[in-house]
Amino acid sequence: MQYTFSKKVSGAGGGSAVEEILRYAGDPTVISLAGGNPASETFPARELADIAAELLREQPELALQYNTPRGYAPFRAQVADRLKTRSGIGRDFDDLFIVTGGQQAIDLAAKVLCDEGDTVLVENPSFIGALNAFRAFGAQLTGVPMEEDGVDVAAIEKALEACPNARLFYTIPSFHNPTGITTSLEKRKAVYDLCVRHNVVILEDDPYGELTFDGAKVPTYKSMDTEGAVIYVNSFSKILSPGLRVGYTIAHRDIIANMVDSKQNADVHTPILNQLMTYEYLKRYDIDANILEMRRLYARKCQVILDAIERCLPAAITHTTPRGGLFVWCDMGGGYDTREVAKQCAAQKVVFVPGSTFMVDMDAPCPAFRLNYSTMPDDRIVQGVELLGRALHGIMG
Amino acid sequence: MQYTFSKKVSGAGGGSAVEEILRYAGDPTVISLAGGNPASETFPARELADIAAELLREQPELALQYNTPRGYAPFRAQVADRLKTRSGIGRDFDDLFIVTGGQQAIDLAAKVLCDEGDTVLVENPSFIGALNAFRAFGAQLTGVPMEEDGVDVAAIEKALEACPNARLFYTIPSFHNPTGITTSLEKRKAVYDLCVRHNVVILEDDPYGELTFDGAKVPTYKSMDTEGAVIYVNSFSKILSPGLRVGYTIAHRDIIANMVDSKQNADVHTPILNQLMTYEYLKRYDIDANILEMRRLYARKCQVILDAIERCLPAAITHTTPRGGLFVWCDMGGGYDTREVAKQCAAQKVVFVPGSTFMVDMDAPCPAFRLNYSTMPDDRIVQGVELLGRALHGIMG
Repeated sequence: MQYTFSKKVSGAGGGSAVEEILRYAGDPTVISLAGGNPASETFPARELADIAAELLREQPELALQYNTPRGYAPFRAQVADRLKTRSGIGRDFDDLFIVTGGQQAIDLAAKVLCDEGDTVLVENPSFIGALNAFRAFGAQLTGVPMEEDGVDVAAIEKALEACPNARLFYTIPSFHNPTGITTSLEKRKAVYDLCVRHNVVILEDDPYGELTFDGAKVPTYKSMDTEGAVIYVNSFSKILSPGLRVGYTIAHRDIIANMVDSKQNADVHTPILNQLMTYEYLKRYDIDANILEMRRLYARKCQVILDAIERCLPAAITHTTPRGGLFVWCDMGGGYDTREVAKQCAAQKVVFVPGSTFMVDMDAPCPAFRLNYSTMPDDRIVQGVELLGRALHGIMG
Repeated sequence: MQYTFSKKVSGAGGGSAVEEILRYAGDPTVISLAGGNPASETFPARELADIAAELLREQPELALQYNTPRGYAPFRAQVADRLKTRSGIGRDFDDLFIVTGGQQAIDLAAKVLCDEGDTVLVENPSFIGALNAFRAFGAQLTGVPMEEDGVDVAAIEKALEACPNARLFYTIPSFHNPTGITTSLEKRKAVYDLCVRHNVVILEDDPYGELTFDGAKVPTYKSMDTEGAVIYVNSFSKILSPGLRVGYTIAHRDIIANMVDSKQNADVHTPILNQLMTYEYLKRYDIDANILEMRRLYARKCQVILDAIERCLPAAITHTTPRGGLFVWCDMGGGYDTREVAKQCAAQKVVFVPGSTFMVDMDAPCPAFRLNYSTMPDDRIVQGVELLGRALHGIMG
């Protein structure tokens, strides 16, 4: 047999990088600053154990039988209510449905809105899972640079004017992956107006939005969405458990109707036990109290890595100062290729993700890299940055 | 905002039919012969409750953290071993990975093998979830008629010759949905040779394969796959629980590598708790003993519906006589449109799925319809067919 793979697949690639990272993250002898995992100690495992057992014993048919593509209706209502009351998200024209993790909503949005050759605007760098999803539908990626206060507005305006077939602007406005940057309110308003004017849908990915260190939150694009221009995606991966794969998306009902049809083709429905576990957890426990704990935990760990970076890395390396989320972005500057640096460091048992992974042009050398601080114990974070510092001093002289 | 949806989505449609069916199936006042659900009483809910609670208490990090796109390695090995020893499936060139229900494997296979405009050969009628997945990637469907002993071999040969851009032949060879037909071994051999000769991949969907009434099983296409021509898809939906959304697919490693990359874009990984629950269940309990119970249950219920059909439906209506699975296919013949018939019957509180739903041409009137017997109690099945008989006698005179 000679296999003929689709153009979509042949144009993709790079997917294995994340698989590589997930593999490294599982090796206990390696100090991993590479992953994007939430801290496992934040999972309310005992409570979920009791809930799962109770659901399976008392409502076995509901918990184990087929369900509908949109998701469990009381859960949808609960999530919609939470979004409305806490974040001012949701208007009459909007609809919400349940997805198998936030990644699925990104994939479905690309599928229903992008033909091959259409343009998707993305922050450059951006989340590789989203970039690969767009690539795999044959979309052309146009990168918009990031500044300290978020996406470069002049650059996005230029890109919108240059790309009449732009369909989506994909953004992680709060505690951005991989940079940790938060886009200012002023910039969000400007970008929103630009996208509406050019009839381009904003795909707002907000997995880290709750993980603000000091409680400050910039209003989401979706909360200001009077025109039905925003698809808002979020999940319980960072605030409850990623392994459960429970997310949700809210957008104008015409977009959602098409996404639900595609969802049905993708996996029929999100596993119902996982939806019910999340629903019951939210009903019975105070998840906001957990989130407050997580904020404190990640704020502390972020300070640990920032202190270590200041102390151990060459002074020529610049870094962001996140106000939430899971990532710091470091830049060696000059002509360095952090893919090579990452290989040398892996031999020293410390791993991180080279910046090129997150770029629209993955093949060009990139002098930046991403560090994660959410999963390693504090002393291992320090040890990891020390190892990294030694290697980088050796390289940069 | 003016939304521009992709050509893929605009060319799809029909998706809501299944959602309609799933909705009807949930209304307790309706006798539903429409669904494709397994019988809820077959779910080992108590055992799964104990396993879930134990996993979440004793291995909380494993059960709730991110995992890899391919799935939990011991589970993959367990499933591969089961396929090898019980069904003679799996060669050196093959690889196996875990999917979020069998539907996902169909969707991923279409994504990696079909460009817009490519042809997918399908049995006509066939499973609507698969047909819609192919449509949503812009594939052209070419239907191959079904005969009593399976797909029409002369017709598939003709179709292969007429379609140089055919990429896939999608088939449910055992206890076919919607007809209940099983393709004979002789025909499978002929179809396999034809597909290999034309370099067309066989996508073998086998969700009902274990549900043989008398223990007889025709060897799968995959078991005879010396050439790497078959993608085999199966799941635990019909033999353990559909709500858990745990399936698997095995094919040549070059195909699997591309499907895994696409899987990562689709939902990162199949929920790990659901994989672990299935793995532990298979380790601790005798699922084959459960399957034997299911075979007896469905054999009895199939006989109940066949007896009722013979007694209550007009003699002019022909029907298949399944040797396994969940469905009987009835044909009114002549120019009847069972969409209209189904509407009249729904008013009488009995629902089934009109044949056009499963056809390549969904718009043409179809005189056939599908009946399911797996979920209703025996007396309700009989009552449903009696209601149906009264309506059909009224219509056919």
